[in-house]
Amino acid sequence: MATARQYLQFDKAFPMRRGGSLHAAQIAYETWGELSPERDNAILIFTGLSPSAHAASSALDCSAGWWEDMVGPGRPVDTRRFFVVCVNSLGSVFGSTSPASINPQTGQPYRLGFPILSVEDIARGGYEVIQSLGISQLQCVIGPSLGGMTVLAFAALFPEASRNLISISGAARSTPFTIALRSLQREMIRKDPAWLNGNYSVDAVPVEGMRLARKLGMITYRSAKEWLLRFGRERASVEHKPDDPFSIDFEIEAYLESHASKFVGQFDPNAYLFLSRAMDLFDLADHGEGSLAEALKRFKINSALIIGVETDLLFPIEQQQELADGLESAGREVKFARLNSLQGHDSFLVDMDQFRPLIGDFLRGL
Amino acid sequence: MATARQYLQFDKAFPMRRGGSLHAAQIAYETWGELSPERDNAILIFTGLSPSAHAASSALDCSAGWWEDMVGPGRPVDTRRFFVVCVNSLGSVFGSTSPASINPQTGQPYRLGFPILSVEDIARGGYEVIQSLGISQLQCVIGPSLGGMTVLAFAALFPEASRNLISISGAARSTPFTIALRSLQREMIRKDPAWLNGNYSVDAVPVEGMRLARKLGMITYRSAKEWLLRFGRERASVEHKPDDPFSIDFEIEAYLESHASKFVGQFDPNAYLFLSRAMDLFDLADHGEGSLAEALKRFKINSALIIGVETDLLFPIEQQQELADGLESAGREVKFARLNSLQGHDSFLVDMDQFRPLIGDFLRGL
Repeated sequence: MATARQYLQFDKAFPMRRGGSLHAAQIAYETWGELSPERDNAILIFTGLSPSAHAASSALDCSAGWWEDMVGPGRPVDTRRFFVVCVNSLGSVFGSTSPASINPQTGQPYRLGFPILSVEDIARGGYEVIQSLGISQLQCVIGPSLGGMTVLAFAALFPEASRNLISISGAARSTPFTIALRSLQREMIRKDPAWLNGNYSVDAVPVEGMRLARKLGMITYRSAKEWLLRFGRERASVEHKPDDPFSIDFEIEAYLESHASKFVGQFDPNAYLFLSRAMDLFDLADHGEGSLAEALKRFKINSALIIGVETDLLFPIEQQQELADGLESAGREVKFARLNSLQGHDSFLVDMDQFRPLIGDFLRGL
Repeated sequence: MATARQYLQFDKAFPMRRGGSLHAAQIAYETWGELSPERDNAILIFTGLSPSAHAASSALDCSAGWWEDMVGPGRPVDTRRFFVVCVNSLGSVFGSTSPASINPQTGQPYRLGFPILSVEDIARGGYEVIQSLGISQLQCVIGPSLGGMTVLAFAALFPEASRNLISISGAARSTPFTIALRSLQREMIRKDPAWLNGNYSVDAVPVEGMRLARKLGMITYRSAKEWLLRFGRERASVEHKPDDPFSIDFEIEAYLESHASKFVGQFDPNAYLFLSRAMDLFDLADHGEGSLAEALKRFKINSALIIGVETDLLFPIEQQQELADGLESAGREVKFARLNSLQGHDSFLVDMDQFRPLIGDFLRGL
């Protein structure tokens, strides 16, 4: 299959925020649209935890992207007007350097020897890509979920690098509730005997641990209300195994099972562990001497669109409100959208009828 | 240590709602206070998933019970006025017959050969205990969580057996969200290689699976808001292991770890599986030909106190409201208390300042 994927290869060591550095690292990215002669029409997109840089289809890769309805000609992120770049996060496995990559110093995969990953490192990966493309200032930097955190890290580290930002279901820091959930997901993988302290081979990954972790993710990405309407107490059509009283019985169990199976094999378990921990560790207040208000004051953006969803369990609406209030107090122009979407944290992937006009209007107004 | 535990032994087979029966089964229970000569001052308490019948201390067992602040002389469930009975749920391991008990027909533990457990079976266990004590009608039947479900099953199966009821953070049926969570908890245990399809020995139980399941339970029993106030982003005082980037770092991780360790060894994994599935299967509408409204109409109680907590993730306030509304529509006298306690589903064990007066006032008014 044709690929639209491009790579930025680093000649110099890539310094990691919490110590250590990566040698011969690379960041995978895709682009859509044309960069203007003034190089002033660029938008950078950071992703959530699991997607690649393939946000949308293009002539080079006609497969649908993870945000297909949002990015393209005539779409809200309009590639007739904007030059759009989406990066695969540093630490992720779709072309960027990750714990599954070969460490050139040892000839072996990094595995647990990968330096501790920070959201700031992911932000720097995106920054280096736009620098390499000759873009000194973006029109807008956009990201949902982990990408929303990355947008904030980007604005803190590189205050001149974007005129505007859109944070969708992101957070200025992780709460103990989400740290607990992610810690448990990591433990599910680490307690799988096949994990082998990170030294599994590619044909014998800790499948069971990954399946459990993915199921917990799926439970927290949606909302109880959506599932009540969608599944209720419907029974699964799969055959209930008479010799196993705990086999799949309800439709919701069959749904989780089929989706978890799809995920396993697509994502390297060690990479998942590092990205998950990076979210725990992120605290925007680190960029304001411990004060979130101070960190937000140092942003140099003109305007921000903060989108939150009332049914989001993981990045609750209060965190979006806090972010919007903090930016407003810092004198920025802020549009805060509080959506009643049913699909919880995942709404930005599903409830396109609400998300498209919000993002389209904001970008048209720039 | 002295014990206040008593047993009801069944001479006849105990019929199980979803098929099969138990031979030589028993129910463990404790009592407090004195039964009046008219036998009309009794209260029956059903428990949540994990406690024993030891709700409170007594002369025979001075150790604190799981609801010590609620039950006793001068306390809201006043043992100077009421004769109080608390039963260990059928299927639980604190004296009642469970999957860990010896099946007299084989001489071996039941394990997965235990018949499918229903909330209705637990209700029947309590009913048989009060019958054996010569009590034909209770003043009140009370239960939190699984106990709240059991109270509803009790009122449906034995409409004349209690004049009043208190359901605390219970539910008329499980939602797909809670089914998903419990299904995942069970899978954590079943995927532990030590589970051995239920055939583990008592000195080699599936410890890791139980720890993971308990941690997920703890995450869902409390509220994100409580943890934010209590733990914030505090770091653990335990030594961070430098060779393991995923060892405990945040205080919330240390908290989960220490509590999960306490739980393991106290509860038989197979018993946990059966009790957990019983909650999924419960649907009060089964007692009204598929209609919850119809099932509630058949209750013969005079009055009900329904208590719910706004921060409860598992048995959300909407389910409490639905129950209160349904009972009111059925012509019962209902007091619905909507509490703003921070401690989520566990509030009835913690936020005693709100729960004590509610329950005390209701019982004084009978």
